[in-house]
Amino acid sequence: MANTFGCIFRITTFGESHGKAIGGIIDGCPAGVKLNLDAIQEALANRKPGQSVYTSSRKEGDNVELLSGVFDGLTLGTPIGFTIPNEDARSDDYTQLKDLYRPSHADYTYEVKYGHRDHRGGGRSSARTTASVVVAGAIAKQFIAQYYTNRILPEVLVYVSQIGEIPSKCTTEKVIQSQIYTNPLRCPDEKAAKQMADLITTIKQQGDSIGGIISGEIRNAEAGLGEPLFNKFQSALAAAMFSINAVHGFEFGSGFQGTQIPGSISNDEFIIQDGQIRTKTNYSGGILGGITNGMPITFRVAFKSTSTIASLQSTINRDREPVELEAGGRHDPCVLPRAVSIVEAFCWIILADMILLNKSAKLDQ
Amino acid sequence: MANTFGCIFRITTFGESHGKAIGGIIDGCPAGVKLNLDAIQEALANRKPGQSVYTSSRKEGDNVELLSGVFDGLTLGTPIGFTIPNEDARSDDYTQLKDLYRPSHADYTYEVKYGHRDHRGGGRSSARTTASVVVAGAIAKQFIAQYYTNRILPEVLVYVSQIGEIPSKCTTEKVIQSQIYTNPLRCPDEKAAKQMADLITTIKQQGDSIGGIISGEIRNAEAGLGEPLFNKFQSALAAAMFSINAVHGFEFGSGFQGTQIPGSISNDEFIIQDGQIRTKTNYSGGILGGITNGMPITFRVAFKSTSTIASLQSTINRDREPVELEAGGRHDPCVLPRAVSIVEAFCWIILADMILLNKSAKLDQ
Amino acid sequence: MANTFGCIFRITTFGESHGKAIGGIIDGCPAGVKLNLDAIQEALANRKPGQSVYTSSRKEGDNVELLSGVFDGLTLGTPIGFTIPNEDARSDDYTQLKDLYRPSHADYTYEVKYGHRDHRGGGRSSARTTASVVVAGAIAKQFIAQYYTNRILPEVLVYVSQIGEIPSKCTTEKVIQSQIYTNPLRCPDEKAAKQMADLITTIKQQGDSIGGIISGEIRNAEAGLGEPLFNKFQSALAAAMFSINAVHGFEFGSGFQGTQIPGSISNDEFIIQDGQIRTKTNYSGGILGGITNGMPITFRVAFKSTSTIASLQSTINRDREPVELEAGGRHDPCVLPRAVSIVEAFCWIILADMILLNKSAKLDQ
Amino acid sequence: MANTFGCIFRITTFGESHGKAIGGIIDGCPAGVKLNLDAIQEALANRKPGQSVYTSSRKEGDNVELLSGVFDGLTLGTPIGFTIPNEDARSDDYTQLKDLYRPSHADYTYEVKYGHRDHRGGGRSSARTTASVVVAGAIAKQFIAQYYTNRILPEVLVYVSQIGEIPSKCTTEKVIQSQIYTNPLRCPDEKAAKQMADLITTIKQQGDSIGGIISGEIRNAEAGLGEPLFNKFQSALAAAMFSINAVHGFEFGSGFQGTQIPGSISNDEFIIQDGQIRTKTNYSGGILGGITNGMPITFRVAFKSTSTIASLQSTINRDREPVELEAGGRHDPCVLPRAVSIVEAFCWIILADMILLNKSAKLDQ
Repeated sequence: MANTFGCIFRITTFGESHGKAIGGIIDGCPAGVKLNLDAIQEALANRKPGQSVYTSSRKEGDNVELLSGVFDGLTLGTPIGFTIPNEDARSDDYTQLKDLYRPSHADYTYEVKYGHRDHRGGGRSSARTTASVVVAGAIAKQFIAQYYTNRILPEVLVYVSQIGEIPSKCTTEKVIQSQIYTNPLRCPDEKAAKQMADLITTIKQQGDSIGGIISGEIRNAEAGLGEPLFNKFQSALAAAMFSINAVHGFEFGSGFQGTQIPGSISNDEFIIQDGQIRTKTNYSGGILGGITNGMPITFRVAFKSTSTIASLQSTINRDREPVELEAGGRHDPCVLPRAVSIVEAFCWIILADMILLNKSAKLDQ
Repeated sequence: MANTFGCIFRITTFGESHGKAIGGIIDGCPAGVKLNLDAIQEALANRKPGQSVYTSSRKEGDNVELLSGVFDGLTLGTPIGFTIPNEDARSDDYTQLKDLYRPSHADYTYEVKYGHRDHRGGGRSSARTTASVVVAGAIAKQFIAQYYTNRILPEVLVYVSQIGEIPSKCTTEKVIQSQIYTNPLRCPDEKAAKQMADLITTIKQQGDSIGGIISGEIRNAEAGLGEPLFNKFQSALAAAMFSINAVHGFEFGSGFQGTQIPGSISNDEFIIQDGQIRTKTNYSGGILGGITNGMPITFRVAFKSTSTIASLQSTINRDREPVELEAGGRHDPCVLPRAVSIVEAFCWIILADMILLNKSAKLDQ
Repeated sequence: MANTFGCIFRITTFGESHGKAIGGIIDGCPAGVKLNLDAIQEALANRKPGQSVYTSSRKEGDNVELLSGVFDGLTLGTPIGFTIPNEDARSDDYTQLKDLYRPSHADYTYEVKYGHRDHRGGGRSSARTTASVVVAGAIAKQFIAQYYTNRILPEVLVYVSQIGEIPSKCTTEKVIQSQIYTNPLRCPDEKAAKQMADLITTIKQQGDSIGGIISGEIRNAEAGLGEPLFNKFQSALAAAMFSINAVHGFEFGSGFQGTQIPGSISNDEFIIQDGQIRTKTNYSGGILGGITNGMPITFRVAFKSTSTIASLQSTINRDREPVELEAGGRHDPCVLPRAVSIVEAFCWIILADMILLNKSAKLDQ
Repeated sequence: MANTFGCIFRITTFGESHGKAIGGIIDGCPAGVKLNLDAIQEALANRKPGQSVYTSSRKEGDNVELLSGVFDGLTLGTPIGFTIPNEDARSDDYTQLKDLYRPSHADYTYEVKYGHRDHRGGGRSSARTTASVVVAGAIAKQFIAQYYTNRILPEVLVYVSQIGEIPSKCTTEKVIQSQIYTNPLRCPDEKAAKQMADLITTIKQQGDSIGGIISGEIRNAEAGLGEPLFNKFQSALAAAMFSINAVHGFEFGSGFQGTQIPGSISNDEFIIQDGQIRTKTNYSGGILGGITNGMPITFRVAFKSTSTIASLQSTINRDREPVELEAGGRHDPCVLPRAVSIVEAFCWIILADMILLNKSAKLDQ
């Protein structure tokens, strides 16, 4: 339901932006996975604020503490409970916002739905909650790495491909993991990355914010993953992506462009390549009928501009009176660089879940 | 899981394209809803094939039979089981396809996943299965109509807004339900509809297929619907849309375009209008933090071109040998007109589910 | 939720006693299982009414029709939809009961909960709905038989061990399947069975009803099945059993008797027997910490007397007036013989589900 | 699934007996509930060890920390994450047990299932995990108290009614809450309580353990709660009870005794009493067709003797060699007094869940 994601490999999260801690429970991770805590911490480091001038100056150690489910370095098959303390929560920054409904924030909707809300830092609606997803993703990744012992490992490539109007020039197929983290923009095209950085600097100076597109590609996923009808690989991916703050669009394979390409072109002809069943083109984005076909799974995620801006804005308060608002709190002028690790985490979680679900697909599995 | 959609108002479906019947079970529909069978049948009629030259010539009565859950015309609160017979299944058309993997169809992926597949008409991967969704949507709609007795009813407007490169000129806000069904294209812009019809005719003559975009708008949905974090209103919508055959993209509110609009513009200022809390603009598409804010919920769904085309195609067979394929079976050169009712059905199902889930949001609900 | 049982191997049922049909959807049965329809029909025959003078005279063919999920005799991995028509529903027998609340029936509670009920034959609360469980159980059994190709097959023994005050003398360990169906009482102790039959005949003549106990033993279940904490093997069994009409008690292993046996006696010492890890005694009933240990899983299910009796009873009607009631409708003076196949079916369903869930327990599974 | 209980009001738990902490996430608690932390702590105090000579000498503060979901003293409608540290874990006591399979413990079955286990204090199979259930129960109770503002509150009475062969003489209907906690045995019959205390003292001196029966009665539950078919009120209760360590039996209403009572006696005649619909007798235990009828919900839970005893026992080790075992670790000679609060907690959780589920039962709810 609301705070649980996944069927077998499942993450349930809790936490508000300025509460004592955020955290979660990962249930369904198989026993016997050797957990590398540093790798989890590293994934969190990629998401955490305060890494560069392009992101929020909130300083969080984001030190995860695993409380259960692991013994002698191996997972037990029991739930992995974990917490991440909220350290640098400057709740006072938000006092003036207590009775306001910030434009394009969830203040009003949380209040309507629940009658009572934690106004500090956006409460539960804060992107801070995605740190728990990153923890689960890092564990899913380790499970998968140890699961495919004698096979080519799936690889998840996620990077910033557009900020505002500035596109990356790199061709998806050529991106490699090591290129992504060479700049704080998480854009493998160094030249574009520089332009993007300049744009964000300008936007920040203007007290404004900007959106962009994150592209992803899952390589070497085995064919057969995905559960039709309603838990198709793309449905799981989409549901995940739209749970991330500021995401307003998702497409895979030929996406919105494909609406104009006739079937005679966009149909992906099956061929044999290096002894493997492949398709000549990949308009399908690696998924047919909701099930992976062994080709790269390609997708793009559209993020709108951050709602928190430093400019003066008009809005209303609880008493339905018009008020002026100058944003307090720290924020990201552009969330995309930090969102890369969230998108990646979800890919690993979905892969892990689909791999485990697939064990029940056939009698002789 | 795979074949169940929804949390409280839930639909579980079964059926292959050429099996004895398709159908499903609707569980969680409250008791006391007066069911109008004609309205269900009418919704099915909007989806069914053979309605115009622009759709497949398969002739299905699509006569739904409700087997349970209704007594004396009212729902019982017990599961509503229903079946829709497969009448005009010409399975022989598919015999030659038994050992082939049709390009961009799910033949190969179903075979990899399950080891055994029903090749006739695409089996479970056929869009025929969506008829069961339409039944559930029609029932959800009736529940909602009777639930909001003294309030403005939510309205779901879904229509074809683009076929290939031909866009509709109509502005979403001005579309009204009655305009949508005045032409077989389900496009409220009569002029564009004519051009679209011409395009499909040409495409069909060429033995080709084409995609397009369906736009939707849910009006008068109450504020407060949607379950953060992972069952946000947009996550549910997206998961639903990506379960529909040929859907490759989904966006809501400002969508992909919004990635280039700075926050100072795309932030929706709260105002009081006619005594109601509204926003001046609606870049958020009616959803903030996963919860509806009372503004119209706007979204767009991208459909790729149908995979079944009448031209000669190259592919491989089970023995991994290259083969030529001339498509048998009847098919739609463009699925969008028929898909309108599927998209609409999901909107009603999600609304119903979110309304029921919302009853537990507050102590004093 | 309410009408779905199981996690991976799942059955969702629908249907009222006198509606057009009952039925269900089995989701999660792996592909490639060779389905023997006769075996399913045979399981239904064991449950159906009208088999002997000891059961209801309602005559139902209970002919199941599989509508999907099977092709060329093999399961497809897709949902198996099925229906069983209601043929011999004499709804008129129930007209006089329309406004009454029969003692110990669900008439009143369904009306309070749902506001509207199908009074005919008990509607959804009728034991007739259990026929769908029997179908699922028969399919689960076939899956298991084909899953354990090179191993000893699990065996499920379920039989009547007590009717009223008459116990069966047979020792559980010595009961074999073939003995159970040699008499219509489903009691492997022929002598006790005769006494039970006499008791039921007397009870029936008196227009009364009687309860009893069904014992079960699952042999050769592999060690490791069951999902702690809340889906322990015994929790699943208990939830299943208490869903069966008239069940008021469940115990496994040492059960209620075990409350008086000190740990020094009831602790089951581990030993090696024939190269296998076994326990010297089996007070644990084959389950430790919610997980099977390879020993026989033993349990007992208590059924109260049937609520429908032929004697005059006092009760109230909808207008809260006292009324006299002489039962119409056909009924079983003792439900136990027919319930045997329902209990057995649930055992197979739970085994199948736990086997599939167990595939995700370990990294190297 | 395994570590989650409930449908809407849901508790997911984590934690091993000797890990850093145990804890859980309560999801689905409505917003606006005023939380009294002392009341939660008090419920934990009733369960915690070291309270009397009759229970384990392990000393745990059991100080729960709520990490989220509460703001300004009111629930937010967001998940309530909480932890309870493990303070007095003497893991060294268990070192000698690392390679043994203790009789009637879950050592062997966890190892078979997961391949890897935390041997310290029973790991996840320890009853220590039930503390998280108690937290959820205490919160559910507060929700219910605030939900029924103008109605008679449901009351949950749970007490020890038998230890070994010593029954309590008290009649269930006359037990009142205040009598239960007047002695450390949680037995409202003072005289029986003294005998029970003597028995446990003797049993403890003998290095042995003993079981017993806990009785429960839920009074003033509204009619209409429970979700047929598979989430009947009794199914939920039973699944919950069998998740508690050492529980081997559950019965409600007439239970096992009722198998011998003819329908003419056990049918509960409906009457009007004080203007309310009631039944003359209550063999049904307050539940008809899985739905509460407004009468007291009565049940009994059978606990076997604790598996940990201080006497010498024979068993085998991982190398399948016979070994002698003298139990280390602290334990309860009789778990029933502490289990009372666990049983009670589940009753509140189930009530809360069924109340929230019931909000969707009728159109006009």
